Amino acid sequence: MLAPKSPCKTAPTENPSDFDLVNVRHAVFQAEQGLREQGVPIGAALVRKDGVVIGVGRNRRVQKNSAILHGETDCLNNIGRLPASVYKDCTMYTTLSPCSMCSGTMVLFGIKRCVIGENETFLGGESILRDHGIEVVNLNLDSCKKLMSEFIERYPEVWNEDIGEEDK
Amino acid sequence: MLAPKSPCKTAPTENPSDFDLVNVRHAVFQAEQGLREQGVPIGAALVRKDGVVIGVGRNRRVQKNSAILHGETDCLNNIGRLPASVYKDCTMYTTLSPCSMCSGTMVLFGIKRCVIGENETFLGGESILRDHGIEVVNLNLDSCKKLMSEFIERYPEVWNEDIGEEDK
Repeated sequence: MLAPKSPCKTAPTENPSDFDLVNVRHAVFQAEQGLREQGVPIGAALVRKDGVVIGVGRNRRVQKNSAILHGETDCLNNIGRLPASVYKDCTMYTTLSPCSMCSGTMVLFGIKRCVIGENETFLGGESILRDHGIEVVNLNLDSCKKLMSEFIERYPEVWNEDIGEEDK
Repeated sequence: MLAPKSPCKTAPTENPSDFDLVNVRHAVFQAEQGLREQGVPIGAALVRKDGVVIGVGRNRRVQKNSAILHGETDCLNNIGRLPASVYKDCTMYTTLSPCSMCSGTMVLFGIKRCVIGENETFLGGESILRDHGIEVVNLNLDSCKKLMSEFIERYPEVWNEDIGEEDK
């Protein structure tokens, strides 16, 4: 019997900051761009605490035939190499609860905050984030839920492949 | 105070199988190839339980200016897209204890076994693997320790960048 995958779900954050509500829009744009490319509509943005956008990315499983380019990993890959100190001052914005790969990636890079659009359509590795002292903020955005739920309904096989699940 | 990064170190496995000792050599070759390219010498191979090598990869931080192409993620990226069922019958061989990004990646893909060359020069996310029911085998190979210790001594700044640590 395997341990459950990341059971710890972050409740919607009450009174999120304007800073977070503004910056998550960079990630939402990436998700929408992914959908235009017929890809999995999940976007991410790494934003420094002074508001500078260090990089953006989106899930490109379909576009690049890649098994590892999720929103967050694509974002970090697009950015390229950076000294460790830069990540520590950044927040990762992502439209969806980050999977265990992306959660482990944030732990590795020493990112201290993760702001998610929602975790209703999928619950990822939030417990991995929290276990390693990363703050998780859940904006619980209807726009993000709509993007994902429509995609999952339309392309269930692509979605199952993306999260390592076998087709029903 | 952050939780410690993955404190759970796997003891050397007594009497490892011939299957594992043979298959880790695919990963060691990749690490050696990385060193020839002046990259971080960590290699990986995904091997099906019948011994078929599904793919190989190596850390390509230096070669590709990539922050996310570690041995295991490069291996999975090289393979491309696969149905979830394939990964479940595979072992990930890696020359070094997998970092939290690569550990989370194995959880996502549903890989059931991870065989590591060593965990003395670096201790990664073995506790993430174990917490999610993944078997960890530590071959404790001198050849792998030599590759890493020589590299770390020669290029400490590249190594610190790779594991998200600030330079001393």
